[in-house]
Amino acid sequence: MTHRVDARALAGLQREISVSEFFARNRHLLGLDTPARALLTAVKEAVDNALDACEEAGILPEIRIDIAPRGERAYLVTVEDNGPGIVEDQVGRIFGKLLYGSKFHELRQSRGQHGMGIAAAGMYGQLTTGQPTKISTRTGKSRPAWEFLLSLDTTKNRPIVHRRQRTDWTIAHGTRVEIELEGQVQRGPHSVAEFVRQTAIANPHATLVFEGPDGERIVHRRTVRARPPRPRPMRPHPHGIDLGTLVSMTTRTRCRTLATFLQREFSRVGPTTASAILRRAGLSRRAATTPRGLTHAQAAALHRAFGATRISAPSAACLVPIGEDVVRKSLEARLAASFCTAVTRPPAVYRGHPFQVEVGLAFGHGGAVDEDRADASATVLRFANRVPLLYQAGACATTQAVVATSWRRYGLQQSHGALPTGPVAILLHVASVWVPFTSESKDAIADDPEIARELRLALQECGRRLAHHLAHVRHAREENERRDRIASYVPHIAAALQEILGLDDEVRDGLVSRLDATIDRRRSEAA
Amino acid sequence: MTHRVDARALAGLQREISVSEFFARNRHLLGLDTPARALLTAVKEAVDNALDACEEAGILPEIRIDIAPRGERAYLVTVEDNGPGIVEDQVGRIFGKLLYGSKFHELRQSRGQHGMGIAAAGMYGQLTTGQPTKISTRTGKSRPAWEFLLSLDTTKNRPIVHRRQRTDWTIAHGTRVEIELEGQVQRGPHSVAEFVRQTAIANPHATLVFEGPDGERIVHRRTVRARPPRPRPMRPHPHGIDLGTLVSMTTRTRCRTLATFLQREFSRVGPTTASAILRRAGLSRRAATTPRGLTHAQAAALHRAFGATRISAPSAACLVPIGEDVVRKSLEARLAASFCTAVTRPPAVYRGHPFQVEVGLAFGHGGAVDEDRADASATVLRFANRVPLLYQAGACATTQAVVATSWRRYGLQQSHGALPTGPVAILLHVASVWVPFTSESKDAIADDPEIARELRLALQECGRRLAHHLAHVRHAREENERRDRIASYVPHIAAALQEILGLDDEVRDGLVSRLDATIDRRRSEAA
Repeated sequence: MTHRVDARALAGLQREISVSEFFARNRHLLGLDTPARALLTAVKEAVDNALDACEEAGILPEIRIDIAPRGERAYLVTVEDNGPGIVEDQVGRIFGKLLYGSKFHELRQSRGQHGMGIAAAGMYGQLTTGQPTKISTRTGKSRPAWEFLLSLDTTKNRPIVHRRQRTDWTIAHGTRVEIELEGQVQRGPHSVAEFVRQTAIANPHATLVFEGPDGERIVHRRTVRARPPRPRPMRPHPHGIDLGTLVSMTTRTRCRTLATFLQREFSRVGPTTASAILRRAGLSRRAATTPRGLTHAQAAALHRAFGATRISAPSAACLVPIGEDVVRKSLEARLAASFCTAVTRPPAVYRGHPFQVEVGLAFGHGGAVDEDRADASATVLRFANRVPLLYQAGACATTQAVVATSWRRYGLQQSHGALPTGPVAILLHVASVWVPFTSESKDAIADDPEIARELRLALQECGRRLAHHLAHVRHAREENERRDRIASYVPHIAAALQEILGLDDEVRDGLVSRLDATIDRRRSEAA
Repeated sequence: MTHRVDARALAGLQREISVSEFFARNRHLLGLDTPARALLTAVKEAVDNALDACEEAGILPEIRIDIAPRGERAYLVTVEDNGPGIVEDQVGRIFGKLLYGSKFHELRQSRGQHGMGIAAAGMYGQLTTGQPTKISTRTGKSRPAWEFLLSLDTTKNRPIVHRRQRTDWTIAHGTRVEIELEGQVQRGPHSVAEFVRQTAIANPHATLVFEGPDGERIVHRRTVRARPPRPRPMRPHPHGIDLGTLVSMTTRTRCRTLATFLQREFSRVGPTTASAILRRAGLSRRAATTPRGLTHAQAAALHRAFGATRISAPSAACLVPIGEDVVRKSLEARLAASFCTAVTRPPAVYRGHPFQVEVGLAFGHGGAVDEDRADASATVLRFANRVPLLYQAGACATTQAVVATSWRRYGLQQSHGALPTGPVAILLHVASVWVPFTSESKDAIADDPEIARELRLALQECGRRLAHHLAHVRHAREENERRDRIASYVPHIAAALQEILGLDDEVRDGLVSRLDATIDRRRSEAA
């Protein structure tokens, strides 16, 4: 019996699957499963791109987000920025092709990292409303503005440009994206307004204007005028390289010797480190061995030597944390809390990728911090590369780090395995050249021991400062109460003195006010 | 000021990202994050493919899974089947290209559905050990056997064939895949042995032989000889179509009228339904309108009419449930339980995709059901399209359905929000043309109200049967106890009768045994 026929029949069915067909059907992986979530995801992807482009070009961002109803369940999402604009011949691929972009191949911090978001949001709009994406862009006053109307051909993963024309846009430079999509407006912690508010907290150099579907208009003006520095791309670090990647690097390099290959293509490898690695790999004597000439066994030895050699941690120039001062000021400005503190940890490394953790803590009343219930759980504000994360809080390494911290030690109530309670907001920011998200929708940061450790240390430091503040507040309150008690005796003491010393009423009243003043002065000195 | 330069500079960095580059870096999305998990994922993907191919060709599967250590942390994973084999010119793309396959585009139940699994497992092997994948395959006795050695070029997402040669393989037809990868052997619920055991439960027509790294050898022989029927592909159902997909179908169709377009390209649309849809869409009079000639407004009206028209549920011929009898027998054979029952629900539909839910329940001692602790949580065996799901149990709709069921009503202990406790195993199977997995790693089924409803109904039916069984067992035990009490009086009654009636010892003993026999007979009648 031969199964040739079956095998042939099966072969006839084999076909390539375009990445956009895959994600059109699996759109829930991209955060495009429900109308409510899709609306937020579309805004998020457009704002991420706008902020990235502005920072890339050194522009202080001004971003307008507008959501307008279009029929029964559809909305028009418009995001307009004052960024550098997009060169005409790139517009199609950026908005009409999944897995295309500048941020995947470069090792440095950016909001986008997958090259899918905005094109996927447009694809969702197209699938649910049949409408193409509209893009207006201008790269400078001396250049014309362009308007594009385009869709994504999902079977081929490539753009279909319906219209491409010059337009009279008065803005000097910038980009406007308009996507019509099936959506649902949500209030509360998953709302677009909340996303914009949190984006303003982590990006205080940006001005954000949000116009909602009910005519609401919220303006978050920038609270700092300093532009964050532009992160510098890094080369891969030897401790973050797979054997397979190393082998493919050896076949592509133009370097003629192993020593130059190591020094030019890797981060933190100088002549001394290169020699140490080669010696350990048993490759130091073979001056004649070229990277391309390595046998598999030699490549494996080289890879083992990477792991066994001490190499300086990668440079943090690829990272742009928000900064302690800015986090604290931003919390003060947006949350109206009575106590704010922030910790930016020094850069660290997970699997060869540099990352940096920041934690801010706001305690007290007002704003989002206290929602009129002292027994409410702490508010946790999660950020990855300055982007707010609103979904899947429970699955996120940041939430897990807050839960794992012993807040009772720092003066907050906390049940086992839960967030602390009280009028407290905790901001956590993980900045990295490659954030390990748990899915393409970039909702939650995967559990990694190094990242968890840094989060823990930063949380503990904030906790200690909070404990210090609370002790101080308690001390001042107790001191005040003590003085209040003393002050209540002042009139009686004065009356007794009047009787004993035979003072007249005027002198007695003068005595009362002098005693009161003394107590007040000491009270304010103690505060 | 012009930002032309910045826009140009940015444009220069824009690049296509190959899907394999994307997943090489995001390999955790494919279940390839840790060595332990990667080892299991590689086995799972190879076994899924082997079972799919055997069923496709109507062959009773015999699959051999072998894990052998290779150096310190590496293992060679070998999976060999007696399937139809693979035609030579397809081998490269099936094993050396992500998003390639026969199962994505066809709407019918199969284990694979993404076209990524086995190639991704090979890519992981290559990245971690530098070794290519080895494939041996033969499509029939009259054909030569082929051996391939290939890798995946991640920058281009295409195969690199290192070697392709005829080989003398004595097997008549089948395929063998060998992947060397960095792995870690795990025991317990996430082990390869457990995966193989559960695969045998859901695929009792397959014989599976597992040889572990420590020389262990476990054979699961088939317990049924009937081959599952081959699922038939279906056309899309009008209730599961996006507007955007509808629009793109209208541009691709060769049908000249809307009525024939609806009848030929959709499931469950006959002339009457087609007329009803067109009438509702206001398109019935325009006999001249061709699918290609639809305006956007007309397409949108047609799409609304789909939703508003009653259309029969899609045919379930695309589904192959395991079947109530087979589930029950399989549980009996593998779990040695005292009570087994199973429910296969009628086919249902979520978002236009047919699906079918099965639940089996095994109660009692022996095997995996009772692990010597009556207060242990129930064992939950989760399956999607007959494939065991071992990771992310908490995130899975099946586990959530078990937790949401009130087991106290059926005689089991259960804490709020937890699994029931006791010597019980619950098997849940969701079969569908498109299982909504929560990620590419296919670990958990996403929450969907229709699927949740079917799971609930099946669990409740099994629960009622369990309650009936437990009541029966309790009744029989109580009856037994009552008779035991009566039996204990027999000698005394006999002694009293002897005294009253003056019987001799022989007659008295005869009386005792006759009374005992009567009680025993009634006891066994009652059981």
